[in-house]
Amino acid sequence: MPLYEAAIFIGLIARKNNFFESQSMPPYSPSRKNSRLKVPGFRAAGVSCGIKKTGKKDLALLLSDVPAITAGVFTTNKVKAAPVMLDIRRLKKGISRGVIINSGNANACTGKDGYKDAERMASAVENLTGSGKGSVLVCSTGVIGVRLPVEKVERGVPSLVNNLSYDGFSDASQAVMTTDAFSKTAALSGRINGKTVTVAGFAKGAGMISPNMATMLAFIATDARIGIGALRRSLRTAVDLTFNSIIVDNDTSTNDTVLAFANGLSGCREIKTDSEAFKAFSALLNGVCMKLAHMIVKDGEGATRFIEINITGAVSTEQARRAARTIAESFLVKTAFFGGDPNWGRIMAALGRAGIRWKEGMTDIFFNGVQVVKDGCDAGNESKAAKAIKTKDVLVEVGLRAGRCSAKVWTTDLSFDYVRINSSYRT
Amino acid sequence: MPLYEAAIFIGLIARKNNFFESQSMPPYSPSRKNSRLKVPGFRAAGVSCGIKKTGKKDLALLLSDVPAITAGVFTTNKVKAAPVMLDIRRLKKGISRGVIINSGNANACTGKDGYKDAERMASAVENLTGSGKGSVLVCSTGVIGVRLPVEKVERGVPSLVNNLSYDGFSDASQAVMTTDAFSKTAALSGRINGKTVTVAGFAKGAGMISPNMATMLAFIATDARIGIGALRRSLRTAVDLTFNSIIVDNDTSTNDTVLAFANGLSGCREIKTDSEAFKAFSALLNGVCMKLAHMIVKDGEGATRFIEINITGAVSTEQARRAARTIAESFLVKTAFFGGDPNWGRIMAALGRAGIRWKEGMTDIFFNGVQVVKDGCDAGNESKAAKAIKTKDVLVEVGLRAGRCSAKVWTTDLSFDYVRINSSYRT
Repeated sequence: MPLYEAAIFIGLIARKNNFFESQSMPPYSPSRKNSRLKVPGFRAAGVSCGIKKTGKKDLALLLSDVPAITAGVFTTNKVKAAPVMLDIRRLKKGISRGVIINSGNANACTGKDGYKDAERMASAVENLTGSGKGSVLVCSTGVIGVRLPVEKVERGVPSLVNNLSYDGFSDASQAVMTTDAFSKTAALSGRINGKTVTVAGFAKGAGMISPNMATMLAFIATDARIGIGALRRSLRTAVDLTFNSIIVDNDTSTNDTVLAFANGLSGCREIKTDSEAFKAFSALLNGVCMKLAHMIVKDGEGATRFIEINITGAVSTEQARRAARTIAESFLVKTAFFGGDPNWGRIMAALGRAGIRWKEGMTDIFFNGVQVVKDGCDAGNESKAAKAIKTKDVLVEVGLRAGRCSAKVWTTDLSFDYVRINSSYRT
Repeated sequence: MPLYEAAIFIGLIARKNNFFESQSMPPYSPSRKNSRLKVPGFRAAGVSCGIKKTGKKDLALLLSDVPAITAGVFTTNKVKAAPVMLDIRRLKKGISRGVIINSGNANACTGKDGYKDAERMASAVENLTGSGKGSVLVCSTGVIGVRLPVEKVERGVPSLVNNLSYDGFSDASQAVMTTDAFSKTAALSGRINGKTVTVAGFAKGAGMISPNMATMLAFIATDARIGIGALRRSLRTAVDLTFNSIIVDNDTSTNDTVLAFANGLSGCREIKTDSEAFKAFSALLNGVCMKLAHMIVKDGEGATRFIEINITGAVSTEQARRAARTIAESFLVKTAFFGGDPNWGRIMAALGRAGIRWKEGMTDIFFNGVQVVKDGCDAGNESKAAKAIKTKDVLVEVGLRAGRCSAKVWTTDLSFDYVRINSSYRT
């Protein structure tokens, strides 16, 4: 489903149920609760196969006991890593057994040989687990432009498969880390169509890209029973509101991938699109994606602050998102927040070049609840605002008074450490 | 002339005469030579009126002895400072006597009062010099959102006018500085239509914007005799190839302005569009703008390297420019160059999200002449490239082999000092 349809969909359900009002919380799930990090029928593992020179875990596997309905959202970058091209092809039928992931090498810009290496990674798992040919997906993250040491992967797969465990999500989450400072996992469960349904996942990412050692990957497992059309729709919406609404450094990786696997083992009746059950499931999926996405921002390279940009009063959701992104992407806004400077002029200037329809004189801006701009001019609260933003979490609210649409994005400040991490030589 | 027409125009003349091949040099002018920094009939001055607390010069004036044909190019930001709105209105008739400029206050986001302040600045000069009402333009640069201390300006105008001198360009260039580390002036002259014609100018800018204390302003004076249509066309083209092709931090100021004044006092026959004389004049104007633009990049906040991105083989000039800009705007590319890391994967990733038509496998990339990417893959010259880019000037050549169009942009690296300069509190 293209972004455009997703936006319409969000608009419709938001208008009908108003449950996206507090977008930063999973929006809808009366029975939702934090769940243990396991999902019936899903085993996972993480081991070291020697790609990382440090000897840290660098090979992960997530495998369903039975074939699982599988949806994927992939990087929009035209330069796609070999495993991304493999997965897109394999996911046309919407079903798989799971995914093998390596960290330390992105297998990107590696040509036809790289594609064969990705196929060999998948085959190694398929052969050893008796999964059908073409049933295993592949993800890679790490250095761009260097051939994957596929023999190391193949030698590691037996130990990887031996370590598969229903409690293995945590091990797997460690094996996908690159520049990440901490591993990222989340789980939620709720009653849907008469059964307890669990959604659990793990992710990696610290810059939106750093071909040095990074990218954004997320893997979601659920025992919900759901068709491929409904799963794709729910995942696309969740990704737009979460992973596509976080900005660390504006870059899009060659490897960005989000995969969702639904094996149906909860035994619930099938979740149909647009039903109450679909809304409840989407709330669980959105909640898990949101938790993982916020962890990625908080782990942003060199980040010292977690900043939420909240645009209201835009003429369309698309324009609200564009305004929020332009602010979040501004070097000058990000460095000002690093310095604790309530420099609202930089936000006005970002709005002015965002290509949105609104009037400068109708703008209101609040920093952590303190009004800094009123009707497009200084609200006279500079010193109060400077005190208010000396916090780790900063809320920037921008009211445009041009329409009724809104959007949120989450970002970080731009610090000395960001420059240090990203300027150091790769070897 | 909108950007779109300008692009066609560049395409046409470039194809016909091939004289834009070396875009970084003024492209065409057999008799062109560096000129003394003065233009017949133009006086200038720079004084201190007390806006800057340091007591440094903060008020400048450029005035023609006779009414001058005047063209302007202004910020595309929807949040336009009061003087920008005033100038756009006054330049509809394409004629003026000159411009008064203050530094230290942008007079932006200041509402109707700010507009009146801009009018008062102009009136003060008009009254004292006997220029007609509405004949003087205004520019401001500095803090956003703070009322201009217009009384200080008015008290400073008599001394400003008293200091007017045919040798005053240098003083004026100092009075427009904010975070600039050095003042920026350039002059060229050549034989056109039987007479020596001079183009001279001064500029300010160190970040594309820093509402703290910055923006990009440029003022060009010439004694050419040229109609308003031809001057506008020539200026728009020059701005696209120079000031619009430099990137420090992706931001667009609320105050960015380029003004060109032509008083005709060289006595040359009128320069008509599309004549040989027009090409010669445009080469002079382009040359002066290029010199000023490169000085702005070299003065980029915290910059340690001057980077030229040269895209060839794109399917359109617009796509070539977009590819070049996406690379130049990437945090990751900029930090890699700061660290001296020949990290070509970040360039491939930037190309992939630039929205251009080309094939990854057809890409060649060179850093200072060393090939790092061949047919989309590693060319195996990493250590050689690492040595080659340990220079102040870095040339990045990207061949796309998709078409016949090309573009160049100039940018800087992203250093610790950029973060330091832009994160420090304004007061």
